[in-house]
Amino acid sequence: MSADYFAPFDTVRYEGPDSKNDLAYRWYDKDRVVLGKRMEDHLRFAVCFWHSFCWPGSDVFGAGTFSRPWHAGANDAAAARAKRAAAMSFIEKLDVPFYCFHDVDVMAETHDAAGFRRSFAEAVDHLEALQGAHGRRLLWGTANLFGHPRYMAGASTNPDPEVFAWAALQVRDALEATHRLGGENYVLWGGREGYDTILNTDLAIEQKNFGRFLSLVVDHKHRIGFPGAILIEPKPHEPTKHQYDFDTQTVYGFLKRFGLEDEVKVNIEANHATLSGHTFEHEIAMARALGIFGSIDANRGDHQNGWDTDQFPNSVEELTLAMLEILRAGGFTTGGFNFDAKVRRQSIDAVDLFHGHIGGIDTIARALLKAAAIIEDGQLEAFREERYRGWDGELGRMIGSDGTTLATIADFALSRDLAPRPVSGRQEWLENLVNRA
Amino acid sequence: MSADYFAPFDTVRYEGPDSKNDLAYRWYDKDRVVLGKRMEDHLRFAVCFWHSFCWPGSDVFGAGTFSRPWHAGANDAAAARAKRAAAMSFIEKLDVPFYCFHDVDVMAETHDAAGFRRSFAEAVDHLEALQGAHGRRLLWGTANLFGHPRYMAGASTNPDPEVFAWAALQVRDALEATHRLGGENYVLWGGREGYDTILNTDLAIEQKNFGRFLSLVVDHKHRIGFPGAILIEPKPHEPTKHQYDFDTQTVYGFLKRFGLEDEVKVNIEANHATLSGHTFEHEIAMARALGIFGSIDANRGDHQNGWDTDQFPNSVEELTLAMLEILRAGGFTTGGFNFDAKVRRQSIDAVDLFHGHIGGIDTIARALLKAAAIIEDGQLEAFREERYRGWDGELGRMIGSDGTTLATIADFALSRDLAPRPVSGRQEWLENLVNRA
Amino acid sequence: MSADYFAPFDTVRYEGPDSKNDLAYRWYDKDRVVLGKRMEDHLRFAVCFWHSFCWPGSDVFGAGTFSRPWHAGANDAAAARAKRAAAMSFIEKLDVPFYCFHDVDVMAETHDAAGFRRSFAEAVDHLEALQGAHGRRLLWGTANLFGHPRYMAGASTNPDPEVFAWAALQVRDALEATHRLGGENYVLWGGREGYDTILNTDLAIEQKNFGRFLSLVVDHKHRIGFPGAILIEPKPHEPTKHQYDFDTQTVYGFLKRFGLEDEVKVNIEANHATLSGHTFEHEIAMARALGIFGSIDANRGDHQNGWDTDQFPNSVEELTLAMLEILRAGGFTTGGFNFDAKVRRQSIDAVDLFHGHIGGIDTIARALLKAAAIIEDGQLEAFREERYRGWDGELGRMIGSDGTTLATIADFALSRDLAPRPVSGRQEWLENLVNRA
Amino acid sequence: MSADYFAPFDTVRYEGPDSKNDLAYRWYDKDRVVLGKRMEDHLRFAVCFWHSFCWPGSDVFGAGTFSRPWHAGANDAAAARAKRAAAMSFIEKLDVPFYCFHDVDVMAETHDAAGFRRSFAEAVDHLEALQGAHGRRLLWGTANLFGHPRYMAGASTNPDPEVFAWAALQVRDALEATHRLGGENYVLWGGREGYDTILNTDLAIEQKNFGRFLSLVVDHKHRIGFPGAILIEPKPHEPTKHQYDFDTQTVYGFLKRFGLEDEVKVNIEANHATLSGHTFEHEIAMARALGIFGSIDANRGDHQNGWDTDQFPNSVEELTLAMLEILRAGGFTTGGFNFDAKVRRQSIDAVDLFHGHIGGIDTIARALLKAAAIIEDGQLEAFREERYRGWDGELGRMIGSDGTTLATIADFALSRDLAPRPVSGRQEWLENLVNRA
Repeated sequence: MSADYFAPFDTVRYEGPDSKNDLAYRWYDKDRVVLGKRMEDHLRFAVCFWHSFCWPGSDVFGAGTFSRPWHAGANDAAAARAKRAAAMSFIEKLDVPFYCFHDVDVMAETHDAAGFRRSFAEAVDHLEALQGAHGRRLLWGTANLFGHPRYMAGASTNPDPEVFAWAALQVRDALEATHRLGGENYVLWGGREGYDTILNTDLAIEQKNFGRFLSLVVDHKHRIGFPGAILIEPKPHEPTKHQYDFDTQTVYGFLKRFGLEDEVKVNIEANHATLSGHTFEHEIAMARALGIFGSIDANRGDHQNGWDTDQFPNSVEELTLAMLEILRAGGFTTGGFNFDAKVRRQSIDAVDLFHGHIGGIDTIARALLKAAAIIEDGQLEAFREERYRGWDGELGRMIGSDGTTLATIADFALSRDLAPRPVSGRQEWLENLVNRA
Repeated sequence: MSADYFAPFDTVRYEGPDSKNDLAYRWYDKDRVVLGKRMEDHLRFAVCFWHSFCWPGSDVFGAGTFSRPWHAGANDAAAARAKRAAAMSFIEKLDVPFYCFHDVDVMAETHDAAGFRRSFAEAVDHLEALQGAHGRRLLWGTANLFGHPRYMAGASTNPDPEVFAWAALQVRDALEATHRLGGENYVLWGGREGYDTILNTDLAIEQKNFGRFLSLVVDHKHRIGFPGAILIEPKPHEPTKHQYDFDTQTVYGFLKRFGLEDEVKVNIEANHATLSGHTFEHEIAMARALGIFGSIDANRGDHQNGWDTDQFPNSVEELTLAMLEILRAGGFTTGGFNFDAKVRRQSIDAVDLFHGHIGGIDTIARALLKAAAIIEDGQLEAFREERYRGWDGELGRMIGSDGTTLATIADFALSRDLAPRPVSGRQEWLENLVNRA
Repeated sequence: MSADYFAPFDTVRYEGPDSKNDLAYRWYDKDRVVLGKRMEDHLRFAVCFWHSFCWPGSDVFGAGTFSRPWHAGANDAAAARAKRAAAMSFIEKLDVPFYCFHDVDVMAETHDAAGFRRSFAEAVDHLEALQGAHGRRLLWGTANLFGHPRYMAGASTNPDPEVFAWAALQVRDALEATHRLGGENYVLWGGREGYDTILNTDLAIEQKNFGRFLSLVVDHKHRIGFPGAILIEPKPHEPTKHQYDFDTQTVYGFLKRFGLEDEVKVNIEANHATLSGHTFEHEIAMARALGIFGSIDANRGDHQNGWDTDQFPNSVEELTLAMLEILRAGGFTTGGFNFDAKVRRQSIDAVDLFHGHIGGIDTIARALLKAAAIIEDGQLEAFREERYRGWDGELGRMIGSDGTTLATIADFALSRDLAPRPVSGRQEWLENLVNRA
Repeated sequence: MSADYFAPFDTVRYEGPDSKNDLAYRWYDKDRVVLGKRMEDHLRFAVCFWHSFCWPGSDVFGAGTFSRPWHAGANDAAAARAKRAAAMSFIEKLDVPFYCFHDVDVMAETHDAAGFRRSFAEAVDHLEALQGAHGRRLLWGTANLFGHPRYMAGASTNPDPEVFAWAALQVRDALEATHRLGGENYVLWGGREGYDTILNTDLAIEQKNFGRFLSLVVDHKHRIGFPGAILIEPKPHEPTKHQYDFDTQTVYGFLKRFGLEDEVKVNIEANHATLSGHTFEHEIAMARALGIFGSIDANRGDHQNGWDTDQFPNSVEELTLAMLEILRAGGFTTGGFNFDAKVRRQSIDAVDLFHGHIGGIDTIARALLKAAAIIEDGQLEAFREERYRGWDGELGRMIGSDGTTLATIADFALSRDLAPRPVSGRQEWLENLVNRA
């Protein structure tokens, strides 16, 4: 089991749009300053362990197609070590600053609670060393609370409190490991926090327990002094029929209910956004409006396929709209762009991993440049501001004033015989503006 | 313009399942007592004005196909009067207790604010007289804040505060009319409260104004002493690309944000539920879990068509699941089943209106009987209770106790070497139980 | 590895609607005569190997949850033998006549072509003995041309002709085994016959090769004298982005193109129908209208989830519409109802397999009774016939006559000043009729 | 009713990517030669009457918002004349060569068959004069067989043969008018050729009548010597629940069934493609593979909204993939890009019509340049050709040879012990190649 799976590849460098090199960046020029900040600092790219190093290329209808060396036998300590080393080498070669992982992604398989802790601790030691050796950082850690059969009916929403306790065990360790590794965020994706059938489900109990769990995690964060952000990742369904963290607004209501809206933010995944019936940019804009924008899981879905395809982003157009909302939100603080994306099952070679990431990185970098150009041009923002100008006028201020009632406003309308002038929304012109950038 | 459009029809009566009469109820036996309450009091059926008396059978691709007498010319005072009289006669013949309307449904067309008030006031006078004459009641009233071109960019979320003021004018009158007519609820459906393109939209301003508007309406309700409920009707989109009241959980978060969660409930429409990616029963169960269950707009969508088809309910199976959740929520208080449903464009005859409503009423009545049988059988509820039994045990109580931390629980898992026993969710058995009822 | 996994269970018997026994049939009374035929002969139920005996309860996000004894170790000869024996015992206990399998479902894992043939031959010998011992028959066999990595880019549509040759090898053996075992049909589901990205795909070559393959299979069927039907199973996508056999009408066009429309029929799966944007009954009605109705894969999808959930059928209402179309098509000849359905991942016990199948069987049996009642009532059919009566009249016959041109008909319309009388489609009344049955 | 609604606007000219003029083309440079052909000749743009001049800005939930002068009163002869003149003036100002219309779009309203003919004839005379005056041509004509109540249950698939006869009347005149005006195609969109409920529908009769109608139309085309193409426009549903012309492959099967596959081609609409579960480029590629590619209705849908939004195209990325397939198909012969697109309901001004069309035209022009660059680069095509190279080898040729049987091929696999080498599909690299263009 060789550690140099990626040995044949050089570090990927910026070579500009006219490069003929498939393994170069055409747009991602990490030190280029855009709107006053280096591209690397704007975008804060991360590579994920699960799709890029753990997944063997299997799907519901077929076996794994990849033959990474560490997949050859059982997932024992040696295989886990080889995988960690290969991953860090890959990330360094991509020259992106961050990585992300679930506990089980980085460790050998185990069979009991004590063994789990030992195996994970060993992995964390190794990751710490690798971080130093490769000069990489942790964007976020998380615990996998959905893969093991014990979680088939949920983790914190499981009918069995023993499963809740197992989840607490995993999250404590994963959160502390994230803290120790200097991670900037800790993420919770409630993959099984939902239901398969409403017939056997008590929504009220499950949501109360979910709120309890999240409160305990936030409390633990403060106890250990973890300075990073706690993030929830919305998804509407899959694997469950219905997942409680359906979308950003649902998560907001949940946080408000449990008094956690100042403690927890959202990690928005592009493909989860579209599965929930929203655009990616909508979810970001909504998170910003509600004050809970945290981080991004960059990928894309397939509009003709109703499941989470987790493909690498490749639409500059879609990402430009998302990037506009990110810039409006002031950019990332602790968050970043994590590639929660996998190469297709037929993309079986090491080079395909490079193509996927390079394509995604360049797509997002280019979107940043376009979004910056739109902002610098200023027409889009100016039009929007002008559109709401009336709210700064007499009537607008009156509506918002203390003491104004529905009757005050209705009487105003009547006494002035208001007949509001229709104004074009100029959608096509705005779309043209974006396209020109 | 004759007032006796429905003259050829007799009052619809219960004749039992073996009746050969197409215009009889087979299942809706209004005085039959189910779980301690008369069917009529359980179901509180209402007929709506808009689909059944206003809509001419047009769609996006074709002109109206119906030839109701009151559609023949302009919508002047005489036509509006004839329509109101015909509607009340129909509802009496169906022998259901309630009706629902938008302001513009019941009045003649007008051109300015003062004329609008006069025309609506005349309609309300007439409705009051008709209620008495026909022995019918108002389930809810509402104002149409989406049809007139002034609302093309929203009502309370319009960029122009003059439009907000017009909405205030209409809602004040519609709310006061609802109060005067003894209506049990007042509904707000924000058909244009959303956006067509995020490019020209400031979500933050629009949502703040939306919250302001709702707060003013709630305040006005208290000022006039209206004892009924204020209800929001969620819908994810259509006519807008995105509507702010996406679904029940979104509305909950919105209410929490503006401190209105004890003042406002939801009016759940079956077809809106499915358009938002949920089942009808999910939306009811969620509203119940969040304490905001109000009323129902009964209809159904078409699973192959991605728009609001507003068909009459005809699936006893789907309604049984919905009715189970309604019964679990304690049944209706001020709410009821309003048929927000329209006969198909090819169903051009007066008799088709009867078929649509009779079919819907019988479907729901039968679902009530099935849901009651499931509850009386008790196995479903018992299974669910047993499933969560662990939360009453040592660990369950410990998890919920003050002073318990994530670490306490994690250490418990570790010290006991917890290996939770997998338990079947028994989904197929539960589905069989429901089917047997 | 014990062969008596299902030993604790008795044979499932008909006990009528009032039975309190969870493991009895309430509606499926195999010898009851409906419309002149025994229920068993109408419905021709089959149990499938793959979901019920091979699948370990895994999904994309989690490991297997079932602990069937034959899943304990590697899939070696002993495990395969135990699985086959257990399956046949289960099917006998359900008292349904048929089963279905893919080659790889019933055999031990192997590593080369020769080993594959030996292992499969051994399985077929055993199945033949088990069929006799348990008194069961084969509804259809098939070859799995999608699970092995070699098929990642398709089987007969693979860019590599060697893969086409492997597919030929498997299909020859599976078809001959089906013949030897007395199977009544041979099915081809082209799970990977489609594309993941159109960018690397030559549709024209792939479809030509697909047609060639199907022609060769039909030819081989005749050469070996297999008297059964060859069936294609449509599906729109998953695992591929796009599958060539999208739906029934697409398959029809494909068959016409290659001159195979009299040689091949369709095996319609309920969940595939809904994924392709159609109702289940639509696909059956269309197959009947095109003369290619073959067999049914009984299951259901989830209207809120965009992938193939393969749940057991539990809607009598949906199945009644499907059954109506099957009866209109004259019922099955070689086809039947195969349960291509799996218990949920949380339904981990042997008894859940019984609940799933019993529920599905009773649902379909009840639907048969309802559909038969609708047919015997006669109003639905009579209405439809009357609706098209005009085509037997002067104008209808003229339109269809040789020598009639567009101009003849247009002139007729003009000379008679035709103003067709609008006639209600009576959709609501028809839906009520169905509900009453 | 002034004819100079567009008088304030100048002719739109190419000014290049750096223009600051909102009313200029940045990419559409009609005389620029791309791959050996002028852009104008590649793209063959057309403006449609219905969305841009007839639609008043209404939707299902609201009244018209536009105030075009010709919408002010009834649609009488003067209004129709003003509309035609304004439309032609607009099209000339856009400087695109073509327009498209339905019969009812261009004429005054009428009440009987004879009046219909007279009114339409008058319109055609005027159009002929306007074509000359403005130097524009007709891409295609069609008859509206869906808007009038007589067509509520279909045109050629109507249960009433009198409706079929009316459809024949309209199509004869529309086809002859198209011929007289030098139209290059005649289109049939079967908006109501489908069903609302399968319960009242005889699919077999309806499809037979549909086939009969199309055969008569083709026959009439030959009788009058119309040299253009007859095109069917697929759509899966809306307004019907199910439309018979679901997608390209369905239409192909239908044409094959009635022996019309060499007589009729498809007019593919982008939004219809996505509603049917396909990408736009898929439908074009499939039409090309089946030899029935005709023309394009350019627009786009909204991936979050399940109905036909008919927005102007604005994704260069999506159009590049479509354009690649069009170029592979050899480009248009009689077809072109017709903007079957409408400005949003809030885009109420004349200038919005310009923005919509200019944006669409520039999007497609830019896509042409990108697609041409990809073709000239050659890597994409070379990769695909190489991928299928095996079919030119020994085994590939043997598989396709007369005399080869399934057994021949299976025996070959066995004797060679074939173990096909897995080859990466390189999806990410190909996507990167496209993005770079």
